[in-house]
Formats: sequence, C-alpha cells, structure tokens
Amino acid sequence: MSTFDLIIKGGTIATASDVYTADIAIKDGKIVQIGTSLDGAEKVIDATGKYVLPGGIDSHVHISQPSGEGISMADDFETGTRSALFGGNTTVLPFCLQEKGTPLRQTLNAYHKLAEGNLYTDVSFHLIVSETNPTLLGQELPALAGEGYASFKVFMTYEGLRLNDAEILKTLDVARSTGSTVMIHCENEDAIRYLIEKHEAAGDVAPRAHASTRPAAVEREATHRALTLAEIADVPIVIVHVSNGQAMEEISRARARGLKVFGETCPQYLMLTAEDLDGMDWEGAKFVCSPPPRDKAAQEECWRGIETGVFDLFSSDHCPFKYDDERGKKFPKGKESFRHIPNGIPGVETRMPILFSEGVMKGRIDLSRFVALTSTNHAKTYGLYPQKGTISIGSDADIAIWDPSVKRTIRHAELHDGADYSPYEGIEVTGWPTTVILRGSVMVSDGELVGKKGDGQYQTARTRTPNSL
Amino acid sequence: MSTFDLIIKGGTIATASDVYTADIAIKDGKIVQIGTSLDGAEKVIDATGKYVLPGGIDSHVHISQPSGEGISMADDFETGTRSALFGGNTTVLPFCLQEKGTPLRQTLNAYHKLAEGNLYTDVSFHLIVSETNPTLLGQELPALAGEGYASFKVFMTYEGLRLNDAEILKTLDVARSTGSTVMIHCENEDAIRYLIEKHEAAGDVAPRAHASTRPAAVEREATHRALTLAEIADVPIVIVHVSNGQAMEEISRARARGLKVFGETCPQYLMLTAEDLDGMDWEGAKFVCSPPPRDKAAQEECWRGIETGVFDLFSSDHCPFKYDDERGKKFPKGKESFRHIPNGIPGVETRMPILFSEGVMKGRIDLSRFVALTSTNHAKTYGLYPQKGTISIGSDADIAIWDPSVKRTIRHAELHDGADYSPYEGIEVTGWPTTVILRGSVMVSDGELVGKKGDGQYQTARTRTPNSL
Amino acid sequence: MSTFDLIIKGGTIATASDVYTADIAIKDGKIVQIGTSLDGAEKVIDATGKYVLPGGIDSHVHISQPSGEGISMADDFETGTRSALFGGNTTVLPFCLQEKGTPLRQTLNAYHKLAEGNLYTDVSFHLIVSETNPTLLGQELPALAGEGYASFKVFMTYEGLRLNDAEILKTLDVARSTGSTVMIHCENEDAIRYLIEKHEAAGDVAPRAHASTRPAAVEREATHRALTLAEIADVPIVIVHVSNGQAMEEISRARARGLKVFGETCPQYLMLTAEDLDGMDWEGAKFVCSPPPRDKAAQEECWRGIETGVFDLFSSDHCPFKYDDERGKKFPKGKESFRHIPNGIPGVETRMPILFSEGVMKGRIDLSRFVALTSTNHAKTYGLYPQKGTISIGSDADIAIWDPSVKRTIRHAELHDGADYSPYEGIEVTGWPTTVILRGSVMVSDGELVGKKGDGQYQTARTRTPNSL
Amino acid sequence: MSTFDLIIKGGTIATASDVYTADIAIKDGKIVQIGTSLDGAEKVIDATGKYVLPGGIDSHVHISQPSGEGISMADDFETGTRSALFGGNTTVLPFCLQEKGTPLRQTLNAYHKLAEGNLYTDVSFHLIVSETNPTLLGQELPALAGEGYASFKVFMTYEGLRLNDAEILKTLDVARSTGSTVMIHCENEDAIRYLIEKHEAAGDVAPRAHASTRPAAVEREATHRALTLAEIADVPIVIVHVSNGQAMEEISRARARGLKVFGETCPQYLMLTAEDLDGMDWEGAKFVCSPPPRDKAAQEECWRGIETGVFDLFSSDHCPFKYDDERGKKFPKGKESFRHIPNGIPGVETRMPILFSEGVMKGRIDLSRFVALTSTNHAKTYGLYPQKGTISIGSDADIAIWDPSVKRTIRHAELHDGADYSPYEGIEVTGWPTTVILRGSVMVSDGELVGKKGDGQYQTARTRTPNSL
Repeated sequence: MSTFDLIIKGGTIATASDVYTADIAIKDGKIVQIGTSLDGAEKVIDATGKYVLPGGIDSHVHISQPSGEGISMADDFETGTRSALFGGNTTVLPFCLQEKGTPLRQTLNAYHKLAEGNLYTDVSFHLIVSETNPTLLGQELPALAGEGYASFKVFMTYEGLRLNDAEILKTLDVARSTGSTVMIHCENEDAIRYLIEKHEAAGDVAPRAHASTRPAAVEREATHRALTLAEIADVPIVIVHVSNGQAMEEISRARARGLKVFGETCPQYLMLTAEDLDGMDWEGAKFVCSPPPRDKAAQEECWRGIETGVFDLFSSDHCPFKYDDERGKKFPKGKESFRHIPNGIPGVETRMPILFSEGVMKGRIDLSRFVALTSTNHAKTYGLYPQKGTISIGSDADIAIWDPSVKRTIRHAELHDGADYSPYEGIEVTGWPTTVILRGSVMVSDGELVGKKGDGQYQTARTRTPNSL
Repeated sequence: MSTFDLIIKGGTIATASDVYTADIAIKDGKIVQIGTSLDGAEKVIDATGKYVLPGGIDSHVHISQPSGEGISMADDFETGTRSALFGGNTTVLPFCLQEKGTPLRQTLNAYHKLAEGNLYTDVSFHLIVSETNPTLLGQELPALAGEGYASFKVFMTYEGLRLNDAEILKTLDVARSTGSTVMIHCENEDAIRYLIEKHEAAGDVAPRAHASTRPAAVEREATHRALTLAEIADVPIVIVHVSNGQAMEEISRARARGLKVFGETCPQYLMLTAEDLDGMDWEGAKFVCSPPPRDKAAQEECWRGIETGVFDLFSSDHCPFKYDDERGKKFPKGKESFRHIPNGIPGVETRMPILFSEGVMKGRIDLSRFVALTSTNHAKTYGLYPQKGTISIGSDADIAIWDPSVKRTIRHAELHDGADYSPYEGIEVTGWPTTVILRGSVMVSDGELVGKKGDGQYQTARTRTPNSL
Repeated sequence: MSTFDLIIKGGTIATASDVYTADIAIKDGKIVQIGTSLDGAEKVIDATGKYVLPGGIDSHVHISQPSGEGISMADDFETGTRSALFGGNTTVLPFCLQEKGTPLRQTLNAYHKLAEGNLYTDVSFHLIVSETNPTLLGQELPALAGEGYASFKVFMTYEGLRLNDAEILKTLDVARSTGSTVMIHCENEDAIRYLIEKHEAAGDVAPRAHASTRPAAVEREATHRALTLAEIADVPIVIVHVSNGQAMEEISRARARGLKVFGETCPQYLMLTAEDLDGMDWEGAKFVCSPPPRDKAAQEECWRGIETGVFDLFSSDHCPFKYDDERGKKFPKGKESFRHIPNGIPGVETRMPILFSEGVMKGRIDLSRFVALTSTNHAKTYGLYPQKGTISIGSDADIAIWDPSVKRTIRHAELHDGADYSPYEGIEVTGWPTTVILRGSVMVSDGELVGKKGDGQYQTARTRTPNSL
Repeated sequence: MSTFDLIIKGGTIATASDVYTADIAIKDGKIVQIGTSLDGAEKVIDATGKYVLPGGIDSHVHISQPSGEGISMADDFETGTRSALFGGNTTVLPFCLQEKGTPLRQTLNAYHKLAEGNLYTDVSFHLIVSETNPTLLGQELPALAGEGYASFKVFMTYEGLRLNDAEILKTLDVARSTGSTVMIHCENEDAIRYLIEKHEAAGDVAPRAHASTRPAAVEREATHRALTLAEIADVPIVIVHVSNGQAMEEISRARARGLKVFGETCPQYLMLTAEDLDGMDWEGAKFVCSPPPRDKAAQEECWRGIETGVFDLFSSDHCPFKYDDERGKKFPKGKESFRHIPNGIPGVETRMPILFSEGVMKGRIDLSRFVALTSTNHAKTYGLYPQKGTISIGSDADIAIWDPSVKRTIRHAELHDGADYSPYEGIEVTGWPTTVILRGSVMVSDGELVGKKGDGQYQTARTRTPNSL
C-alpha cells in the first residue's frame, strides 16, 4: 500500500509569497507533504519545467442566473464549471439571486439543486440581496451566514435590483454583526438612467451608447459612496470590477482614511476598450458589460493597480449570453436600443491565461502575485482559506500545472463554455494550465478532460470575526 | 438744484479688486460719479478714516419659513431684514419653500405678501424644490426663471424635503436649460438616519449627538455625489455651508476635473466646534445646525479655503429659532431626542463683523477679498450683478460705511433679530458698519435706524446663458 | 482752461472685479474721475463699443540680457518696450542679471543706462540673484529693496546661474526680512544635465531633444522643492512659467498646506506643444524655451489653472533670439546639439491678444479675469499697485482700448519686436488693443505709434510687510 | 543514521502568505521537508502552541561604523549580532561606509575583518556611497555588484556624507546597469542646516531642537526628490525610515505614476514622538535619531502604512550610542548644542517583539504580514531570497520559534546590545522569540544562548535584472 495517493514531482511551486522547486505528496485529497525526493505514491506526475500553482479561484462568476426580460444565461453549472476547469480553476463562486417575495432559502435550495451532480469544480455561493425586509435581514441572512453563506452582494445599479443607501446600510449592518463580507457593484443608477434617456431622446441607441451612458464618473461616484457607507457602518467591503483610475483613487483614499477594502478588477479592463463597442455596429453587442471597458489610459491605470496592490482580486465577472440568440434573434429589442442588451460577457476560461501571459510572461508581475490575485486572495476574502487557495500542508490538493511553453491563440471554438463567442477571440497567449487537479483527483490531464461531472462539491465559507459599531 | 442727491466724501473705497480713496456721488439711487473733490450734493457724508464698502449681500438666509412639527422661525421679514441691515447688509436672499401639491406660484405669492411692505433691505428669493413633478419642472420653474427667480435649492438631507439623485438630476437639467443656479445642501440622509437610530437605540439623545450622527463623512459623500451629478448634467452648482476640509477637497477635485462650482462657508464653521454642543447639556441646543461645526482643525481648513479661494461665498445660513420657546417650552420633544431640535442658528447681523474682525483686522484676508466674499460674489453668483454687489458707475448705491476703530462685544441684547440668543455671545470684534445706505437712502446712520420698514424692495435676478448637454 | 486733460467716453470699462460703462477723466497722468456724462477735457476719445482696460503689465520679460556663449538678445529696451506697447502693455518688468564678482548696484546702473531715454512703456526691474555672498545678501539686496527693487529671481536650472537649496534659502531669508518677493524658475538642473548626457551619448541632438531632456518630472520636482523651501523660510514666492498639471498640483498642495504662493503661466503653454520642436528639424529651434511646452493634455490643464485660479499671473516670458543669427549662422553650435540653442522665445506683443481671443472671446474666462491675469495681479504681486494695474481714482492713467471686432492673423512682419519670427505665426485672433495710453499720454492711436521713445519711465516698487521667522 | 538533522514538530508555521500547522525537517542547514507526522531526526523540537516563523532579517542596522567627531558606536559585530539573535533575527544587513579617497574594497576588507569570527547571525553588507568618483562608479561598484554586494545607500543629509542630485543620479545609473538596489535617506540637508542656524542663533540648543530643525517638510521634500530622480533614472529604490504620512503620500504618488519603490518604517515611528525629546532636558538625547519621531497622528499614519502596504519593510535602523559616554561624558559638545549629539538609537533586539505585540497581538496585522514585513520582504528586496526570508523547501533553515504567551517588560538590563539604555524601556510586550535556529543550528534555546560566536556567516546577494534607460 502506497503512503500517498499522488506525488507531483519536480515542478516549480508557487504560493502567494514563495517560489521553489519541490515534490508535493497528496493523500485523501489533501496536501500532506512537500519536500525533496518524495516517493511512495500510487500515481506520480512529472512536473519538471512546469509551474505548480494553487488551483484558480474565480470569485465572480454568474451561472444559470435569471437576467430579466426572459433572457437566459449561456452557462449552466455543467458548462460553466467545465469551462472554468479548463482555464485552471478548481473553485468558482457564482451568485444566488434572491427573488423578491420568496424566502431566500427556497431560492437557495433551488439553486443548489441546479448545481448538484453537475459540477466539474468546487463551488461556493454568494447571496445577492435584492430587497431588505426585516425577515431577510433579521433572520434569514444571519442564519445562512451561520451555515457558511458568508458573502452578500448588493447592486447600486440595475432597476429592480439596486438597493438605495438606507438598504445598503442595513445590509452592511448585518454583515458587520455576522462577520459576513459584502461585494458592491458601484454605478449610480439614477445618473445612468438620466443619460440613457438623453441618449435615446437623441436617437443614440447603438451598442456604443452603453459606454457613454455609464461614464467613469458614475462609477467613481458610486464607489466613493459605497466606501463611505462602509466607513459609517464600520465593516470591510469588496469593490468589484473596478474599471479605471478614478475609482481606484477612491479605494486608495478610503484605505488612507483607515477603511479595510478589497479591490477587484477583471480581464475586460486590461484588454478591451469602449471602442470595441463601436466596431461593426451590432457586433459591439459582444462587448456590453458594466462597468464598460474605458480607454488605453484606463487599461494602464488598471495594470498599475494590479502591480501596486490597489487590487487584491482578479476575477472574470463571467456572465455569458449567446450573441446569436440572446443578443440577436430571440431578443430583437436589443437592436432597438442598447438598454435592452443583457449586460455581461464570458471569460471564466480565459481569465488566468490572459493574466499569466500579459502579466507574468511580460514581466509586469511575478508568479507569487499571480497566485495571490487569481487564487489565494479569493480564498482569504471569502472565507475558504486555508482549505482553498494555496499549496501548503493540510490544504485541499487543488492544483493547476501550467506549461509556460504553450503558445495559443484564443479561439472560442476551443473553449468550453456555453456562449457562442469570446470577447478575446484572436488574442495570443503564452502559457496554459494543462493539468488540473481537484482535491487530489486529476480532472484535466495534458489538456484532456479525465474528471467527471459531479466531481465538484459545494463548499461552505467561514465568517470573519464580527465587530460592534 | 443740486447735481447729486448724496456725496460720500473721503472714505477708503473697496471693491472686490481695488482699494482707493475717493468721493462717491449718488443720484436717483445710483452711483453716478467717483472721483476727487466731488461736490454739488444735497447731502454729504464725511467718511474720512472709514471704509466705504458695497452693502453686504447675504445669499443664505431663512425667514418666515415653516420648519415642520409646528415650529416657527424667530424672524419674519421685518425683524430679519432689520437685523441684516444693522449688520451692514443691503440685500438678503431668503428661501421660498415649495409646498408639495401646491402650485409654486401660489406659495411664492403668499411669500411675497409676507415680505411686502416689511423690508428694511432689498430681497430676492431662492426657490426650494421639494418635489419634481412634470408641471413644476416642465412649466413652473422655466416660467419663473424667465421672470427672475433664477436660483433653486435642493436638499440631500431632511426627510420629506430631500430629493433623490434622479430628482436632483431633473432639477439640474432645468437649471441648465433655463440658465438657473442650483444650491445644494450636501449631507447623506440615509447615513444620518442610520446613525440616529444607532444613537437613539443606545440612549444617546442629548444635543451633542446631533454632531456625531452627522459626521464629516456624510457631508463629504453627499458633496462628491452632488458634484458628480452636476458633472453629468453639465451645469454649475453652489455647494452651500461647507464645514470642513474633506468636503473642500471634493470641491477642489471637481474644479480640477473641469466643473464650475461655487463654494460657500459660514461663520459657524470658523467660530464654533462640535464641543459647543456638549456644554451644559440642553444649552447645547443653541448650537444645533447642519452640517454641525466640527473641530479646531476643520476651522483652520475653512480659514484656508477663505484665504485661497476654495470658497467664493461667505453667508450666514441665518435660521433662527427661539431657545426658550421653539427649543424649549413649546417643543419638549427636543429634550427627548436631539432629532427633534430644529436645525439652525441665527447670524445675519454678525456675519460680516465676525469676518471683518477675524479676517481683515487679523490680517488673514485683505479688504477686497472681504468684499468679494460678503457681497460681490453673491451678486455675481445669483444674477444680481452689476446692479448689486459693487461700487461702480451705474450700480445701486448700496453702501456700508465701516468704522474700523469700533470695538464691540457681541451681545444678543444689542442685536436686532427675533431670536433670544446669539451663538456668538461674548465674542469681541473690531470694526462695525455704522452707516448703511440702500439705493442712496441712508437707512442706518451712526448706528441709529433712520430708514423705514418698507424701504426695501424685491429684486429679480438674471439667469446665466443656458447651455445644451 | 479745461478741467481734465483727457476724457475717454462711453467705453466698457473693466477692472479685475467689475465691468461697467462710464467715462474716464484724466488729469496730470492720473485717473481723477469716473462717471456718466463727464466733460471739460482738452481731448476726448470715443470708446463706444470698445473695452477700456488697464494697460497690460508683463512681469516676465527679458531685454538686453547677456545669455552666455556671446549670444545677444534680439530686443533692447527700445524695441522691447515698443513691441510691448503695441501689444497693449504700459508696463513691463525685465530682469537685471547680477554679474558674479561685480557689485550689483554697478550692474544695475549699467542696466538703467541702457533703459534711459529708450522706453516706450514704464519699466521696473527684477534682480536676478546668481550668487549669494554675504555682501550681496547682507547689504546690497536690503539696501536695494529699500529703494524699490523689491523682487528677486532665482534659477534652479542653467549651469552658472542656478542656486543650490542653501543659496535659495538665504535669498528667501532676505526676502522675508525685507518684504521682497522671490520668483523661482523651477527645473532640476542635475536631472536635466543627466538626461542631456544620455541623449548626446545616444546621438540624439536635434532640437526636439530639448523637450525630452526637460520632462515634466524635473519641473514638478523643482516646484515641490521650491515650495518646501519657501515653507521652511516662511515667505511667499512666485512659481514662474508653469507648463503642466503636475507642477500645478504642487502649487495647489502647497496652498492647502497654508503657503502663500503665486502661480504664473505663459502663452506658450496654452498654444504650443513639444511636437512643435519636431517639425522641420532645425525649424524646431524656433520653439526652444524652458520649461518646454508639453502636450494637448497639459494645455488643457493650464487652461483649467487659468479658469480656476491656480494661476494668478499670465506673462509672456518674452526672451527673443534671432532665428537666422543667434540660432543659426552666428552660433552653429546649436546645430551640433540642442544644448547650445539659447532658451527663449519672443511673445511680449502677442501675449494679451492670444489670451483675449482664446480666453475671453471663446468664453473660457470673463473680462475681469483677463484684467486680473494680465495686469492687476502683476501690479499687486510686485509692489506697483495701486499706481499701476487698475482703473480707479488716483491710479496712473495707463489704459488700453481694445476693439473686440478686429480680426487679425499673427504675422511677425506686422509685429514690432527685434526678433525675426514669431512662434505664433499664422494664429488668428479676434480683438486687439488699438489705442494705448501711458500715464494719460496717447502712445498708440488706432494702431499708429504717436508716442515717443523716452516717454516710458522707470518705476520703483513697494515691499510687503516683512515677517519674522 | 537519521534521515534528518532536526525536526520542529507541531508548530504553527507562517510564511508571508500562509499559516498552517505542520512539522519541518532540516538537513545540512536546509529545510528539506514539510509535512505531517515527520520523523527520523537526530533532534526534535516540540513547537506545539508556538509560532514557527522565518528568522527575522533586519536590513537596516549600523554596526562598528565610524560616526564622526571621534564617536564610536556602542555595538561591534559580536554584540550587535548577539542582540539581533535574541530578538529573533538570523540575518542582519549592516553598512560598510565608503571612506573618501580610499578604495572601497580596502574599506570593505577591513569591515569584513571586523565581522569575521564574531557573528552570531548571518550578515550581508550594504555599501554607503559617500562620493562618486569615476573609479568608484565605473569600476569598483560594478565589480562589487558582480560579487554580491548589490545594495548601495546614499544620504541626502549629513554634511560630508550627503550626495547632491547629480551624484545620486550617477549612483542610480550604476544601480540600473548592474541591477543593484539603492536605499535613500531622505532629508533636505540645506533646509536642516538653515533651521539649525536659526535655532542656534536663538539659543535654542536643547535636544528637542533636533526635531524642530528636521520637520516633516524636509523629509517630504527629499522623499519626493529622491523618487523623481529614480523616475528619471528608471530604477527601483528603497525609501528608508519613513516617519510620517506626508512622506508616505509621496511614495503612494510615485507608485501611481508607475515607479517601483519600496517603503521602510521603523519602531521609533510607531512608538515614540518628538515629545520624548523634551523630557528631562538632557535625557531627551536618548531619543535623537533622524528623521525624528513626530506625533501621535504620524504614528497612526505609519500604522496605516503598515496595514495597507505603503510599507514593505519594517527595520530597526539600529544605530546605538552610549548615553553616558558618547552622549555624555566623552562628548560634552552635545550639551552645547543638539547638533553635536550623534544621531541614532538602539533597537535591533526589540524591533520584532514590538511589532508582534502591538501589531499581531492587537489585531492590526496578521501573522503573514508580520513575516513579510520583518523577514521575507527584506530578503526579496536585497537579493537574499529564497535562500533567506521564508520557510520553504530548499531555503536555509533560519527559524525563530515565538511563544505568544510570554509577557515581558522591555528592560535594557535584559537586552544584549552594547548600548546602555533602550528607548523602549518599560514598554510591555506579549510574545517573544524563545528559540532561534540559524541554518539548522539552534542558537538560542528557550531564551538561553547555545550558539557560538562565529556561527554566523557572510552572505552575498543577488542583483536584479538590469534594465537599460
């Protein structure tokens, strides 16, 4: 009988602080030994010349979420987690959207049911709070936080979904008293609505207007407001999908005032610009997401935030819609006005290869910062650490083996999600996660799927220590 | 027959840019000649050794305004303008508060009726917008703007009065298209409400809690938001009664982004602190106003803003309530919780002497800056210039003659307003406006009232050039 | 016998705070009366439909100054002041450059002699301090300050001229104790020298390298340093010829810390960019000045500073060299390397028309701000006010009458300076000062020279109130 | 024969990113295995309930360095490294001060000789550059960088030692081309000199004047200047011993501009204030160091920088002088004027316990951030990583075992340095490193010295990848 189930030999291991060469021994899904010359395993993977990294955690992923106007997302749990897996992820955090008037637990149960048996990666849910009745805030959320649903998301935009300041404060209050974490989508809905009306009145209804009706100012405003509300409620928050330097400056100013705040950005803010919305008229619809990508200068600012620590998290905000269907035939209203185009683009599979290639291989960040931004910090922020997010003794053996010599052009045809295009089509990347291991099981081996649907499990999260006001 | 009605001889004249010695000749209420050795007037005032300044304009004054819960203001137009006059003012701008569900013109007519025949100074109204129905925004405000009611005020705080962002944007839109000016009271009502509930739940209900439930953060937040909304709507605004450096920084940042914004501060932010609310328990109620005075450091910041140009306007925000009655016997609820204490303090008569003494006489600002801050900039901001706000040919002969040798201790007993206390009781000042002339008529002569009730007139304002979005 | 020497009738008069229509009466070179319907003068000028402004004061002008390497300036006092006059100026402030090892008074006398009898405008000297020996600082400067030489200039760049921090502090110390004003040219010489060597080593010697060896960072650094030294020595300073937003931000930060600082910018930073240095190879030499013009974004930043008050002064930094001679035939070394091209461009005649046309006529600033930036603030900053810089009783009758209907294309052939080109050749402007009056004497009448060489006089300046450290 | 030399069992291991429980196996001075249930070692240390951290690296330590005026430092390599060891350090980085006119290698050899055989910890030298002759910059430094002397320090203060901007640029240029790292002590010497003269002239000569002659402004200025020079030379730098928020803001601004900069602060800026210099007159001399500690607000700012990432490095700036001798009997000039008091205070032994107690135990930072600030980042910044600064496979087995239950009052009598006082006397701390292991050898065991003088070794550093301008 072998001592270990699996040994990964000779790779360059990276954590969020260290890079070194060693063997990793895995037993019962856990990392149990790291050292030189390990042996005694049933199975050995030779990782010489490869990078052995913690499996990616994508903490901002939308799967099977209803999107209004009868529009469906292009990914369910099967396709979504399969795509994530091929992109080097072993855990993703999708959102369970509270339905107004329905007990949250009921919606959550339904959502669990959608996931059950369909997962290729581990999964943990965030709860989207879309109203703030006393039962929800006083009973449901505290109970669920106690059971490991420890992150809530609130929206400052999207009619029907957005909360006003009083509602956000109430939600932050529950977060403080339960030790939960609140993610905030920061855009000023009223200002957007005002600009949409101006644009529509002027007949300016093409996809490009999506960007001009959501200028950086509305993101900066909402970011500053969210940070101030968190300051008033004395609780840490996550500012998600930051798109430009003005919003980044708000995060830095809040930190200088003493607030604990986590910043997130996404591939679209490094790789796309508002001009992509221009191109070929309706083709611009492929790039509709909120906040919209800005310009080259804003891309540089976001890179700076990645390098200097303004950002803790690099997520995909994967939110896939089919271009031909959801954005085309089935929902012709989108062509009448940009306001009807569902917001969101796919990206769960390409997130890490893009940052690896553009960041690590081009010398902007080192391997440890890559690991921190794509895995460790996600686990720490959302209560999954140290079980997830690192390579150390006792942690889950969630590991992606990256081959830095792979050169590949992103083609949607070769990706595994349920959408019908990639906004990153044609981009060339160097480096790809060729082998992916989930809790000790090899799921992808040299680029081939070997794991099974259902191998992924749901993971509960831990709350922070609550504080009193 | 004399050539002139009145000549003021030998004084040191100051405008917002110049200081020089000359005679001023007045005819039919207008300044018609400035020069050396003027003569030929019916009446001559010797101003040798005195400062001859444009009459003060206080563009932020509350008179006869309903304040909720059945509370009355301590000043009507008679006492309010009389007090203003004795403080060196020749024009004040009170607010006509729109009553929900009532045509604004009807309320305005009633307000005109209150003023008619009772004025000791000239007066022009700002319109407080408390709701945003299509008739009001689409018809009433444009019509009134065309008739010379060219400044609107909106509140981001006070339940029942505050507008949300969508409503503020609509109002700003009307301001842009009509060339009107919008004043914004910037405090985040939801955050204040949250803090009030926390304080009351903790039994923290004394006047001092008024300040801790309205921290600088709620002012900074609302200021940044107001400035962003103005940026979106592309229209200049006035940020009124700024109390501290954090809000000032928002104004400076907005200017650096290219927004035209006017900043206002008030005597309370130079002379009082939140600690004044502490003293003697209930006596703290004398100092309840919003935003609340902060601390010594914030006072210094406000002085800096006065010196460097962050502030364009120095107003009183005169909003008088009787301490014994409105804050005491008649409204005992104020003692149950600070939230019921009416917000506002008197100050129309002491505004200019305080800035003259603390600013000019102590060398912080020069005489021209004093004139700009207390008169000229108010006329320019609110469409009364060049008729009001300066000493130049063709302007109304609104003049205050200041004696810089007067030393006086502020005592409410010697003031002329309708309140029963002054928050500045006991402060010693050097310099006082001893003679005040309104459109050529001497109203106060060597400290004695010689003008009559009704000498003041209503003045219509001019709009700016409207711009399109 | 007429009461007045001259009356200017019916023009629109502007001061730094007021705009109004009136007549101006002049007697013995002074403004003695302003009013309606003035008469009784020997001579009357009809200014109906014209702007009657204080004569321009250009406080940053180089005339007949030695420039190293045997290079001569293209203007002496005759051509320099004549050109200034035609551009609407009635006073210019050139520099007397201290020669090392020579008593400053001796140099000053020689400089006075160059000016004497040759002036078309009034003139007052700044003293350039190029070394800091105890006699100079302890005796010469205090004595000269007492005689009305109340502004010193120091350079942080230019080998042989620049002072180190210790020397600057000593000079600031004398300024504080004598109430003098210090102008500082802020660029870090060591950093420039380092970059020049790098460029020359790389064979990058064309005129365009002038800009890349003096990047915004070297200006920002020196600006912050100068401001800190002034903060340490507790004395106001003038930051001259600011070229971009980074340096502007330093000024704003220093003001927020409480320092009194005056900011100056120049036409080149509104109208030129570093790309002008590119063009046509050697033709780029026409645009060599320090700091170099930057880019479009920096131009916008400078406009913002003009609008919002970061800048108090708008000067020409007129520093003329002949392109054909000084930059060409006579000094071929300039073609070997940009480092030998003399720094400076002409502009005393075009300064005000450019700002009038681009600023006032295009609606960026109003007439009062134009007057403040081009005249009043110069007089106030350098101790010439109220004799100079305004239109008020008792001031010198220095007046420029502007015709806003003139449309003109800038052609060097039509200018009056001693250079052989204008960097603004071909720019179209609206508005020009067609009549210029110096102390009551008409010098330029409807565009024709009617004054005589020698009509200009030297003016002594007043010091500020000194303060102790 | 045992497989391993030493196993540390059951402790809570922390790296700069991870915290977990495991056993560590050591062989030949290296960490060779980390895992559960390790055995087979000659020696086992039970670390249950303890923290097992990378040995501290103090990268800012002065030992046996000449200090002018004949003053000796209180520590030689024996006492200095012994004290460091007892404070949980396994590596310290002292300075080899270049002597003008002497080949640097000669000085270095002498310094090596002082160290040889006397070390209780490992040691690596920084080179202080005190002049910039072509031989030094062109030959000596590049040669030495190639041999592992890869960090240079320059001073902007201290007469005789400080470099001017041109010299700093030359040094930065060598750093860029050799991949070396430059540490900069940022204070403006000229400004300090100016203030010292003012103070001495006013008879203000007590120790407290040390702080008022080195205000935050002189540190802010030099910091901004150093950062700009590094920006010009395009090379990363370390800003050492930052004392306040103004200097921190410069670091943040430089990072936002894109510069790679490392920030360092020290215990004195968290625990002391300028008021400590006041106390008991001459006793104030115990707290003389540069930059001087500021006030409570600055302490808070520094804590914020520790929490948020402005600071990468937490060092002692250990620079010990005997109070009775060097600051007293032997050098009476210090009592004549503060300018003669040698600058520096001891602290190598107390650095980590202070941060552990005030930071980790009080909840301001977590254990990983503590490790990063006190060990890992030092190794990474100065080219010693991954041999030093972490607990991972292949790294030196430099380990400190901390007992978080120890409560101790800092008493100099119980410390091991050569000074005769501690500036932290009487401060109570929780947690102390009770066992310290150097390359696998136990040096301190349960608080007792078991290692020998000479066990420490010299370590060469690696350079970064050089870049071209």
